[in-house]
Amino acid sequence: MSVAAPRTATERKADTLAMLGTPAIDVWVASADIVNGAMCAHLVPLSLAWIGERVVIAVGSDSATARNIREHCTARLGLGPTRDVVMIDAVLEDIIGVAEAPPALADGDAAQADWDPRTADGYVYIVLRPERIQAWRESNELSGRTLMRAGCWVV
Amino acid sequence: MSVAAPRTATERKADTLAMLGTPAIDVWVASADIVNGAMCAHLVPLSLAWIGERVVIAVGSDSATARNIREHCTARLGLGPTRDVVMIDAVLEDIIGVAEAPPALADGDAAQADWDPRTADGYVYIVLRPERIQAWRESNELSGRTLMRAGCWVV
Repeated sequence: MSVAAPRTATERKADTLAMLGTPAIDVWVASADIVNGAMCAHLVPLSLAWIGERVVIAVGSDSATARNIREHCTARLGLGPTRDVVMIDAVLEDIIGVAEAPPALADGDAAQADWDPRTADGYVYIVLRPERIQAWRESNELSGRTLMRAGCWVV
Repeated sequence: MSVAAPRTATERKADTLAMLGTPAIDVWVASADIVNGAMCAHLVPLSLAWIGERVVIAVGSDSATARNIREHCTARLGLGPTRDVVMIDAVLEDIIGVAEAPPALADGDAAQADWDPRTADGYVYIVLRPERIQAWRESNELSGRTLMRAGCWVV
């Protein structure tokens, strides 16, 4: 099978921003905590919104994802099919109940995600600030995969 | 948009086993560890093989995934597009260097995965035993999503 030539850094950044802005796109959200004395990763697919260079997800206030991120302030996110991935290491910027959220956040989330958590009970928005963003397709793109480092685009 | 009726438990188990047996299927693997004093989840897409009701992945011996699973003995796995997911909570059964692996494992992995780690240096097979398996498509399938509990199929 022939593999496409690796994309340039500029192409990867453009593709990454396009993916993050895609309507109704889902993201795999990994977080961690101690469960029954063992360190465990939690993982769940969620709707994503990309607002002001922040990843916004909506989850139940008592969900494992909300509890873990509230406690440990980090998450690792995976987007895309597994041969066209964007990986984001992110830190917690804010957790806001949906009823208290400013319109720019709640309306922005509803405009991109495929549902509106304001129609449900007990949800919070988690606002995550990317610290590192990496993007690759095949193994020939592992080199040069880091597009953001320490919160700054390097492209 | 109309949503399909929820599948029966039997259908979900059959679909899950079919997905796990798909050639060249990838899996999102989440594991956890302390990094720079903070509890962090790691997440990465990997090729999967399903051999004798075990999930087999091949990773670099010093990769974050290998280190985390060796240390904490658990992983959480996500398969499928995010609207047709199989989630697996698994425990470590074995880690074996590719050169020391029995043929049933190494050949079984190579037959399903899309590459053979015996062609590379420093790889190990991680053999994971599912403890819990859940499968759902849309929210109407969240009820009844648990197909395996405490290592036993409940279907």
